[in-house]
Amino acid sequence: MIRKLAAEFIGTFWLVLGGCGSAVLAAHFGGDGNPLGIGFHGVALAFGLTVLTGAYAFGHISGAHFNPAVSVGLWAGGRFPVSALVPYIIAQVAGGAFAGWILYLIASGNPGFSIDPAAAGAFASNGYGALSPGGYSLVAAALCEAVLTAMFVVVIMGATHGRAPAALAPVAIGLALTLIHLVSIPVTNTSVNPARSTAVALFAGSGAMGQLWLFWVAPLLGAVVGGGIYGWLGREPAAAD
Amino acid sequence: MIRKLAAEFIGTFWLVLGGCGSAVLAAHFGGDGNPLGIGFHGVALAFGLTVLTGAYAFGHISGAHFNPAVSVGLWAGGRFPVSALVPYIIAQVAGGAFAGWILYLIASGNPGFSIDPAAAGAFASNGYGALSPGGYSLVAAALCEAVLTAMFVVVIMGATHGRAPAALAPVAIGLALTLIHLVSIPVTNTSVNPARSTAVALFAGSGAMGQLWLFWVAPLLGAVVGGGIYGWLGREPAAAD
Amino acid sequence: MIRKLAAEFIGTFWLVLGGCGSAVLAAHFGGDGNPLGIGFHGVALAFGLTVLTGAYAFGHISGAHFNPAVSVGLWAGGRFPVSALVPYIIAQVAGGAFAGWILYLIASGNPGFSIDPAAAGAFASNGYGALSPGGYSLVAAALCEAVLTAMFVVVIMGATHGRAPAALAPVAIGLALTLIHLVSIPVTNTSVNPARSTAVALFAGSGAMGQLWLFWVAPLLGAVVGGGIYGWLGREPAAAD
Amino acid sequence: MIRKLAAEFIGTFWLVLGGCGSAVLAAHFGGDGNPLGIGFHGVALAFGLTVLTGAYAFGHISGAHFNPAVSVGLWAGGRFPVSALVPYIIAQVAGGAFAGWILYLIASGNPGFSIDPAAAGAFASNGYGALSPGGYSLVAAALCEAVLTAMFVVVIMGATHGRAPAALAPVAIGLALTLIHLVSIPVTNTSVNPARSTAVALFAGSGAMGQLWLFWVAPLLGAVVGGGIYGWLGREPAAAD
Repeated sequence: MIRKLAAEFIGTFWLVLGGCGSAVLAAHFGGDGNPLGIGFHGVALAFGLTVLTGAYAFGHISGAHFNPAVSVGLWAGGRFPVSALVPYIIAQVAGGAFAGWILYLIASGNPGFSIDPAAAGAFASNGYGALSPGGYSLVAAALCEAVLTAMFVVVIMGATHGRAPAALAPVAIGLALTLIHLVSIPVTNTSVNPARSTAVALFAGSGAMGQLWLFWVAPLLGAVVGGGIYGWLGREPAAAD
Repeated sequence: MIRKLAAEFIGTFWLVLGGCGSAVLAAHFGGDGNPLGIGFHGVALAFGLTVLTGAYAFGHISGAHFNPAVSVGLWAGGRFPVSALVPYIIAQVAGGAFAGWILYLIASGNPGFSIDPAAAGAFASNGYGALSPGGYSLVAAALCEAVLTAMFVVVIMGATHGRAPAALAPVAIGLALTLIHLVSIPVTNTSVNPARSTAVALFAGSGAMGQLWLFWVAPLLGAVVGGGIYGWLGREPAAAD
Repeated sequence: MIRKLAAEFIGTFWLVLGGCGSAVLAAHFGGDGNPLGIGFHGVALAFGLTVLTGAYAFGHISGAHFNPAVSVGLWAGGRFPVSALVPYIIAQVAGGAFAGWILYLIASGNPGFSIDPAAAGAFASNGYGALSPGGYSLVAAALCEAVLTAMFVVVIMGATHGRAPAALAPVAIGLALTLIHLVSIPVTNTSVNPARSTAVALFAGSGAMGQLWLFWVAPLLGAVVGGGIYGWLGREPAAAD
Repeated sequence: MIRKLAAEFIGTFWLVLGGCGSAVLAAHFGGDGNPLGIGFHGVALAFGLTVLTGAYAFGHISGAHFNPAVSVGLWAGGRFPVSALVPYIIAQVAGGAFAGWILYLIASGNPGFSIDPAAAGAFASNGYGALSPGGYSLVAAALCEAVLTAMFVVVIMGATHGRAPAALAPVAIGLALTLIHLVSIPVTNTSVNPARSTAVALFAGSGAMGQLWLFWVAPLLGAVVGGGIYGWLGREPAAAD
């Protein structure tokens, strides 16, 4: 178990360092009007590649969740034991927070670095209303996070189903996360992962901390729905099906 | 059969939510001159990733068509029974329309959201002439949609041929859809999928609804041609071939 | 043999329609300063995806060369019979030219469409000197095309070597073409493929036709060098090696 | 051994020609405000694709390190013999330097080409402080390079572990390098590879040469840490684990 938790710690570290790191360090390079910066497209790719690469590196150790919503969704879908939920989630949040701290150290090595807790997306944090990159409402943000997390869990369960090609599951899962970011960065800066939201909210200040509850509630709710849907969809057919 | 239709419903939901969602929510973020938005390149990637990820998640359940033109093309190529065509197409259109509605709910959570039925690409709709993003004629739009759908069906049939590596077919098929969008978003906003066109036309207003017929006719015609071409090309060689 | 040649015809059609199509229709959408257009990055991805998808669809039929330089390089490396060279090359050039014609029909459906034979990259053509997108000299263009084609053949032979995983070869080969475009679009608009250069030069006017010779000579020379290098590198080790 | 060293020479040649080549020739095309250029996102993709494609082409010959830090990290993790370290590193540095020279020949075929040794990122060189693209300090640069190289080695060792799908390892490793660039180009122009840094510093002038030591020290330190971490994480479980 200790190595599984270490894998979840390092994998979530990688997710936050790579995904949030690309957003903090590279998305806006040279100012918003400068196409040298990687923009939302590059950040979406970075998040997906953290999971794609992490799943190849750690999937055979821990299953490569890196996300409390994924662990909960897999439990809801009958694929993960309830006894491991709390240790996994603790390891994920701790690994993410450690990445947030390393990222803070690197970013603050730039003389012009500062964090405005009242700005949308500060230090790659998630938010709604005034803290949504595009100014989306709480209801839109909650709906978006819940639906996308549900579909993320559905894709994860489908791609790791016994009849899907196991070797390609990390590609499907990682690129599903890229897709989710291509859609929803303007809405919430994209969470679908409470550990990722927590990791940067700790450094982003009062604004992000005050809205953090939504990025636990909506992804976890969506994950339970997604796990339930695929639990039915992907069950082995009965003889008379 | 019920689970196959559910898989087609959810998969087409995913295609429209992810592909059209990226176009509506993220393509133009900050205005057309702002490179933070994901642009046509990001939308092209998003559409392809909906199919890539959906095919890994649902391919072993329903075959992962998510598109009436694909179902028709596979029937024309001898790979799909005519009896399943109508149920599959109904499930696809229904799943896409449900995604259009969810996307409408999310998008309208932005105070600045509105839909101009006379604008090209309104709510990610497809169009020609005045409703083509680049102002392309009806003839050019029809040719473009038919040829690209034909090639899409050819790639699908080739990549799922018994002598091709089955595990990689979703990569080939999904990225073929990305390629198709990289070419043709300026021409028609890219359909090659009547369910996708219908799903957003329902919300885009009179302009898109009035042109919707073309995005059934041209993809379906192209699909029949593509199915026929590969039906000949990929048949097993006779002894004397 | 007829189906092999048909596969090379359709595959090269796809390469030119998708690769050059993305360049003509989508790269500059809205003007050079508009980030909605897919730019060189999107064109690079499109070219690579034509080969990735085409190789999954047709690799088991014809080997999926879609490029006279690849056929010649594989011959130089001992992987392709000299007797098939001329038929393959004719099928490739014909398929490419047919795609050039279809692309011309689509593009001319835009009221603002025109081709300036004296402009660099007109109708996605290749060029050097005044016709190089970045103004690179003939020597730089020739060196660039030869070296990149040599490396393209090396990657193709390596990725299809008996000890490499055959199912992934199309990914390696397609993305190698993307990489090549990421480097060299500014230099020559990237050929490494005489059929692709010919296909659009036929429609681009006197400028491109007058420089077309270089995009036969440099890629073919490079291909022979690349085939020779890998022919040595990848030979099975002797007992005492 | 001679063919292994030749593979490392050619593979590192490819890494520098493709990765640094995209940065020198294509990143800033048309000026920094022009979205036709491929920007940091395109350069990140190019670096990753050099390794992805090179690993399919040469992995079965030399293991496809193309990077002294990778060779040292694999040695630290117990996967590479110390006796091969020096020959591998010499081949890597030589291949990279040869690519730097070819790239210099191509780039200088542009009448407007020049190298300013005092500019950040001159000829794709790495740097900190005044030579960091975003002006990051020496400490931030060192931390960033060390942490990312450590994670690169962790992913490499995980993706090539006996229980991971070997055929997909090049995808995981190549795209990990893309991810690393998406994060850190603004900080150091991204090295994580002393051979790559050396290859272009030789042509970039006194500024890059004076800072080159950091891009040997930080990646090598990180690699040893990463090798050690995965050496523990990925060991086969004992019976009582």
